[in-house]
Amino acid sequence: MTSTPPLFARVALIGIGLIGSSLARAMRKHNLAGHIAISTRSADTLAQAEALELGDSYTLDPAQAALDADLVMVCTPMGAYKAVAQAIAPALKEGAIVSDVGSVKATAINDIGPYLPDGVHLVPGHPIAGTEHSGPQAGYADLFPGHWCILTPQDHTDLAALDQVARLWSMCGANVEIMPPEHHDQVLAITSHLPHLIAYTIVDTAAQLEGDTQKEVIKFSASGFRDFTRIAASDPVMWRDVFLNNKDAVLDILGRFSDDLAKMTQAIEQGDGDLLEEAFTRTRAIRRSVIDLKQHIPDVKPGDTE
Amino acid sequence: MTSTPPLFARVALIGIGLIGSSLARAMRKHNLAGHIAISTRSADTLAQAEALELGDSYTLDPAQAALDADLVMVCTPMGAYKAVAQAIAPALKEGAIVSDVGSVKATAINDIGPYLPDGVHLVPGHPIAGTEHSGPQAGYADLFPGHWCILTPQDHTDLAALDQVARLWSMCGANVEIMPPEHHDQVLAITSHLPHLIAYTIVDTAAQLEGDTQKEVIKFSASGFRDFTRIAASDPVMWRDVFLNNKDAVLDILGRFSDDLAKMTQAIEQGDGDLLEEAFTRTRAIRRSVIDLKQHIPDVKPGDTE
Repeated sequence: MTSTPPLFARVALIGIGLIGSSLARAMRKHNLAGHIAISTRSADTLAQAEALELGDSYTLDPAQAALDADLVMVCTPMGAYKAVAQAIAPALKEGAIVSDVGSVKATAINDIGPYLPDGVHLVPGHPIAGTEHSGPQAGYADLFPGHWCILTPQDHTDLAALDQVARLWSMCGANVEIMPPEHHDQVLAITSHLPHLIAYTIVDTAAQLEGDTQKEVIKFSASGFRDFTRIAASDPVMWRDVFLNNKDAVLDILGRFSDDLAKMTQAIEQGDGDLLEEAFTRTRAIRRSVIDLKQHIPDVKPGDTE
Repeated sequence: MTSTPPLFARVALIGIGLIGSSLARAMRKHNLAGHIAISTRSADTLAQAEALELGDSYTLDPAQAALDADLVMVCTPMGAYKAVAQAIAPALKEGAIVSDVGSVKATAINDIGPYLPDGVHLVPGHPIAGTEHSGPQAGYADLFPGHWCILTPQDHTDLAALDQVARLWSMCGANVEIMPPEHHDQVLAITSHLPHLIAYTIVDTAAQLEGDTQKEVIKFSASGFRDFTRIAASDPVMWRDVFLNNKDAVLDILGRFSDDLAKMTQAIEQGDGDLLEEAFTRTRAIRRSVIDLKQHIPDVKPGDTE
């Protein structure tokens, strides 16, 4: 038993998938919430969350969960943000903090921000952690240690609220980083959104092969393809919303990638070994930087993704 | 000490990188060769192999290594096959077996086959194992257990020679599979060559970003990008030769992938969430098949690649 009061007296989690349920477990483990109120749209998922004892109260009505909450953390797919914000707005108390865990920060600002009453503080956030598994049973308390959580305040964001959310993620083990929302969305388009789109596409290309060839592709998948299948097993609705919401940044980096792929294709067609070898050598420097950096974040497990 | 004689009295390894050095260690561990003769083009690499005690004799002259060998295993990048075949041909004894470990089986047939004297048996092979590391020090004896080794005989291939090479790989722990060379080259274009090209391209796209953005891409690489950097750290010369040698099959699957990527791009541009969600859901079935199959090959380590 600890004698210090929890960081938040009451936290509402709206949405209880991989991230929401991991946060519930982490808050419990580190005594960060006096009461955890859980709300989600599906009665089945809510029953799973209750069976897993992830919270203290359970409701299908997000407003009821948000009532009197000090922190409302929105953990739904981004396509639901607007409806969630409209539903919880009347229930929010003066001084409440609303935050989220979505992969596109412009969406938190555009789809949640405008609906919040005066005196409620929006602190958009994004824990860069996850696995290819989905749902409340997939979460675990130690998902966040060794991972970044990026917070993207705006010019008018309340600094005390920002500090509270930063403390929450730090106490869950994450390394908190603060940057402008537009910058977050550009960087993540490159490090996360494009890799996921490419992985989804290559696995979908294989999914369209005729039966016998497809069986052999699966059989010999260890030769590179298997890594892509893991990334491409991520939650379809969450990722649909990422591409719909970060359209401009994704299309920009996708355009550069397509141009580079066209150059590689031409080099193969023309038998230009020098161009290929030079490109394949350049990429090694990036790998070295990634490995060097990883040594400073010792808890990152290979294969972690979001 | 074992009393049974080794599978081969004398084996010549031409090329002693990751695969050659792993095979040397595995042959030693399982007593598969009475004498291991090692030859490689670089004096430095040869000195490393000798310091690591990978063989019984060391020479810069492939013909000297091949002299009186029962098995000559060509483990060089495929661009060197023709020169190696021409160099060793005069030294090969009647009944000798020549095999290789390259990723494109048409190349073994076209660049080695024509130079071998009558009475010498060509058995093209490809162990689907490896890591992103290169060189003699990167090899280890247990690289092959839980991995496939594909042998691609032609209609006239000597069955006793095929059986000997199959036994070698089985005794090193690999699961041996036999298929026509053209078929191997098509399947590997999908499972291995395309994924590597895509990974090289996306990492090269990042390598061309301006300094500050690139630093942040590296910093937040755990969100998907990092998996690609590992694949894109593979040996540049080996992979250059893969794309130069499996041009038709790679261009065919690359064309399909590019078409599929154009459809995804259009769906993002047009905000077509249904198309994205359907594609992202289809790919999950492939992942399930990969996981189901993996349970039958329990020794495969996550992240293995070639």
